[in-house]
Amino acid sequence: MTRTRSSSEIRDASRRELVRALAVGGTATRTDLARATGLSAATVSNLVTELREDGLIADAGIDNGGAGRPTTLLRIDGAGGALLGIDVAETYIRAVVFDAALAEIGAANVDVDEAWASTDLIADAVLQAVSQAMERSGRQPDHLLGAGLGLPGLTSTDPRRIASTPAWATHIRDLEDRLRPHLPSPLVTANPLQAVGHSEVWFGTARGRSTAVVVNLGTGVGAGIIVEGRVLRGATRSAGEWGHTVLELDGRPCRCGRRGCVEAYVGVPGIRQTLHDVADGHDLLGLHQRDFVQGLGEAADDPAVAETLSRTARYLGIALSDIVAVLNPEVLTLTGWTAWALGDLLLPATRAALAERAPELTAARLALDVSPVRVNSVATGMAVLAFEHHLDTRALARRTRPRLDPAAVPVVTVPAPAASAPQPVAG
Amino acid sequence: MTRTRSSSEIRDASRRELVRALAVGGTATRTDLARATGLSAATVSNLVTELREDGLIADAGIDNGGAGRPTTLLRIDGAGGALLGIDVAETYIRAVVFDAALAEIGAANVDVDEAWASTDLIADAVLQAVSQAMERSGRQPDHLLGAGLGLPGLTSTDPRRIASTPAWATHIRDLEDRLRPHLPSPLVTANPLQAVGHSEVWFGTARGRSTAVVVNLGTGVGAGIIVEGRVLRGATRSAGEWGHTVLELDGRPCRCGRRGCVEAYVGVPGIRQTLHDVADGHDLLGLHQRDFVQGLGEAADDPAVAETLSRTARYLGIALSDIVAVLNPEVLTLTGWTAWALGDLLLPATRAALAERAPELTAARLALDVSPVRVNSVATGMAVLAFEHHLDTRALARRTRPRLDPAAVPVVTVPAPAASAPQPVAG
Repeated sequence: MTRTRSSSEIRDASRRELVRALAVGGTATRTDLARATGLSAATVSNLVTELREDGLIADAGIDNGGAGRPTTLLRIDGAGGALLGIDVAETYIRAVVFDAALAEIGAANVDVDEAWASTDLIADAVLQAVSQAMERSGRQPDHLLGAGLGLPGLTSTDPRRIASTPAWATHIRDLEDRLRPHLPSPLVTANPLQAVGHSEVWFGTARGRSTAVVVNLGTGVGAGIIVEGRVLRGATRSAGEWGHTVLELDGRPCRCGRRGCVEAYVGVPGIRQTLHDVADGHDLLGLHQRDFVQGLGEAADDPAVAETLSRTARYLGIALSDIVAVLNPEVLTLTGWTAWALGDLLLPATRAALAERAPELTAARLALDVSPVRVNSVATGMAVLAFEHHLDTRALARRTRPRLDPAAVPVVTVPAPAASAPQPVAG
Repeated sequence: MTRTRSSSEIRDASRRELVRALAVGGTATRTDLARATGLSAATVSNLVTELREDGLIADAGIDNGGAGRPTTLLRIDGAGGALLGIDVAETYIRAVVFDAALAEIGAANVDVDEAWASTDLIADAVLQAVSQAMERSGRQPDHLLGAGLGLPGLTSTDPRRIASTPAWATHIRDLEDRLRPHLPSPLVTANPLQAVGHSEVWFGTARGRSTAVVVNLGTGVGAGIIVEGRVLRGATRSAGEWGHTVLELDGRPCRCGRRGCVEAYVGVPGIRQTLHDVADGHDLLGLHQRDFVQGLGEAADDPAVAETLSRTARYLGIALSDIVAVLNPEVLTLTGWTAWALGDLLLPATRAALAERAPELTAARLALDVSPVRVNSVATGMAVLAFEHHLDTRALARRTRPRLDPAAVPVVTVPAPAASAPQPVAG
């Protein structure tokens, strides 16, 4: 029996909704918030009181613009806390500190090599990025409300199988264990697909949408899936592995050990293979991944590059049509560094291939664009996950130990995931 | 902004949940119902009172089994109303009348030919089936709480494109218009994918699951997708068109006009094509669809048939792995007449291909079986949709016109679909 949500779960969802409305909207009156969230005026008022006591909401002046009497404008108090989002990608580590209003206040990048096989090397790079980002933010670690660590998805636990992840994929669990004692607490972990899903729900094209898909394009590829406004986790927290769906039966070998996967065509190594097919020995083939992609963008007039982009756009459009056929989303969004670099070059032919290939009604009213959330989409999503986790556990502490000094509440236990609410993939 | 559900939407969901628990469980005390649904004792008590006033819940004796004092057992009162479910498939029409406890009380089948191009022929067959089923049920039309009409999915509105549907696909809208005045009211319509999704949520393997997929195998193929216990509709009510995702880039022509679709390999015409590839001129190729499938099941020892089943199982397993990779469901269920006929022969090799092809973690704890809901899965799902519609509109009538004589309430207006609740695809 699927449980109906309990009143405390509904209240947690309402709190997240209200904070999201303020974080996105900047300022709002209580009436605006009631309208934006569908909550009653009384509920909004109670939640605002709680969040103000926690230092997360502050006054932002008086609204005289309406027809009625002047009312107080509210805003998230950025000084009320900080959040740390970490993006462990295959070619770089990025750490970003946000204030409580989700404004970036410090960031740092450290390059890594996808061929590194040492957990310690990666862990050191993560800690270096975090330390630099914290220093640049000017905040102390005890200002952090929480941290989110985005780790590449693990599609296999079998070390003999190379997963849809870098050479150090099988060390992901080691990496998390190795990092946890050195990172701020509470720490939530998730894969980049769930992180970009949360970014899009808060700040991107999935805002206010029921069903949306955000496709992450980089070395690996995958999809963040939003259904009924929430990011889908799946039975084993592995939803969204669209990169390992079949594009071509018995097709190109994929680094996951199987054949014909979408990733083997539209992941960066796949695009490199296409250029190799088109023009063996092409100059760009000698470059490292990020330089290779940048080179493609700059050499779009080169016939071999143009042919490569044309084939890639077709592969991408056909692969996207599969997820459109199954989920029939309202919006489909591309994100990730490959999408930001090549999206404008790929989009026209990708849209055409998608329209041609998808069952017509499933794509009839579909918008396909590159996400407006750039550079920090994974880090932002991880900070959002950490923030949601903070809001929920803070509320739990209120319910179970009312009127306790907040600083004295040791938030170490993650509440059991509610079936109907998005939850961090807690480590 | 994704709206938080209003209290009336939550109450509608609770009412459906409670009726579902009783319909599935047979009998239950109020305490059992509170436990099964997660609703408070007070809410259960109020809902039971309402539903008893409507004649849908009756006493079923006294439970002396518990540790406490004896309590009243409740059941759905089958006599409280009837529901009609209609399955318009490509080779048959089936109408089933259910009592209010969802027990079958009358059914009728009429064979049709997928090549028929006349809306009138199909419409006559539907009305004939309905009339026979009603007669066999012994109920009068005014006993019906509602009816559900399952129509093949329409993947295109362009008549130049043959859709994933029979030859009369482009007449579906005409068919609905033609039938509506002659069928009981209120009438809800949906495609078979959504219908089997509802069947599985109420009576099958999706009961109590958050994420589940039910794959319908017949002439056409598709998937009913359950997320957070609710059947996904999608932006244009077209979710689940897995049959038209790509299995092989530029592969076999599909009757949808594209190439390489899953349906072109595992739909019945696709299986026929495989046998043709294996043994051109094979005797079974001369048979009509349903006889062909029955013949395959009976001739599994024939080497050409064995090879055909083996290839089909592999195609199916690989195609299923795509939906598993994307949705990471808890359970995956096969249904539809091809699944019932060939499921046992296909399952071992299908499971093996799925396990081999799906990203390991997405399939790690996955159960793949043929649905326990047989024969009437679409008709049952349509009756369930009609029942849910009745419960919601009845509740709306209560809210807007309290204490009105139930018989005098003309239930003709469908409430605006709630973003967070499964809704019939109302015509």
